[in-house]
Amino acid sequence: MIDVNDGVKHQVERIDDLMNDGLKIIQRNDVFSFGMDAVLLAHFVRLHRGDRVIDLGTGTGVIPLLLTARMQDLTIEALEIQPILAELAQRSVAMNHLGDNIHVSIGDLRQVETYYKYESFDVVTCNPPYMAVITGPSSPLNTRAIARHELKCNLEDVIIACKKLIRFGGYAAFVYRTERLDELLILLSRYGLQPKRMRLIQSRIDKAPELFLLEAKKGASKGLKMLPTLIVYDEEGGYTPELMSIYFPEA
Amino acid sequence: MIDVNDGVKHQVERIDDLMNDGLKIIQRNDVFSFGMDAVLLAHFVRLHRGDRVIDLGTGTGVIPLLLTARMQDLTIEALEIQPILAELAQRSVAMNHLGDNIHVSIGDLRQVETYYKYESFDVVTCNPPYMAVITGPSSPLNTRAIARHELKCNLEDVIIACKKLIRFGGYAAFVYRTERLDELLILLSRYGLQPKRMRLIQSRIDKAPELFLLEAKKGASKGLKMLPTLIVYDEEGGYTPELMSIYFPEA
Repeated sequence: MIDVNDGVKHQVERIDDLMNDGLKIIQRNDVFSFGMDAVLLAHFVRLHRGDRVIDLGTGTGVIPLLLTARMQDLTIEALEIQPILAELAQRSVAMNHLGDNIHVSIGDLRQVETYYKYESFDVVTCNPPYMAVITGPSSPLNTRAIARHELKCNLEDVIIACKKLIRFGGYAAFVYRTERLDELLILLSRYGLQPKRMRLIQSRIDKAPELFLLEAKKGASKGLKMLPTLIVYDEEGGYTPELMSIYFPEA
Repeated sequence: MIDVNDGVKHQVERIDDLMNDGLKIIQRNDVFSFGMDAVLLAHFVRLHRGDRVIDLGTGTGVIPLLLTARMQDLTIEALEIQPILAELAQRSVAMNHLGDNIHVSIGDLRQVETYYKYESFDVVTCNPPYMAVITGPSSPLNTRAIARHELKCNLEDVIIACKKLIRFGGYAAFVYRTERLDELLILLSRYGLQPKRMRLIQSRIDKAPELFLLEAKKGASKGLKMLPTLIVYDEEGGYTPELMSIYFPEA
């Protein structure tokens, strides 16, 4: 299922310790690596034992890996359009002996109905590309550009995929930029997903929130619960205690 | 124009000092008084000299009064559905010798097109009722209930009024509850008002944001700028320096 044919040598690979339940992840210096936002999303989403989860645009698979440390008996589909990233995710799953829990597929989230049964997931997670593409990319298409810009899918494509995949009463959880908060909320409403829980993220206590975590529920009543804002750095420039506890739970 | 016929004696009145440019405001102990949210909105909205402004649901007129201290040569319409509050607002305007700048009217914001010319304002301010009415009010209708609950207008009525009143390129500014953030953003989109600037308000540094200030522009491009969150109380329970500077600029 995984087709690696990118002609890049594997000596650029590294194995990073996720500092969480002994998990390790394979990354490469020359392609997209996961960011803090994905780690925060994996920590934010609500899970129940035995949930069937799908991570859209999984990249190197960091969200599925971290979810297995949070809750037992999850079944997780990890969908990624870029073969080079999906192959790394697949090998990380194998290295962590999580092949019974996580299934990596190469595919396009605009065609999820051809891969998965309609409304068959309890939870969808997604760290969508943040940047809209106005005039087309100015730099060559590479894995970072595809992960960060709306080259292969836009935000509406993501929300449509969520609508198709989530069962009635199930959740979608996102991390996204505050600059596009209104766009996300409008699309969720259009596709029947009610925002229920939101947490802003900002670098320092006196800065503006730059990112937010949002959980939406299919078929829920109105009412958005706002959580205390997550601050990343303290006044000395180190991580805050809460960020440390999320990012390095075993440190 | 002002019709006072409420049968309540005027000895319950008091005159409060707005601590701002010598402004004073007449309030009554038995009817709705302005809150901190209105003061923060009056401080948040962007103004230009000579702007034509309308404040929807002005209550005792605190927003128009404070706006005159911020910018010269404003022309402000203050619309209020409750005669008892409009009459207090009118007398405060007279007491502050602001009759040339502020014009108070009793009227229903669902009928603004019968009072004002279409798209004739540069700026609309509104501190809408926060509470949706699900099953009808459980307590008798009084001025506080009408100011706080959607008894005389709902949020969509407010946004429709804004759409009718604001010129192309003009602004609307609101203060509202985070619990209903999604509702406000969806309605703004539906009526062609693009959110451009947002500031969350929370009581203390470790609490969740409860309110937000939002400015939307008619005919603007996408992109929402988030400002640093406004914190009301410090760790000792006193006002923060920023809140002091907004609330008591002459203290």
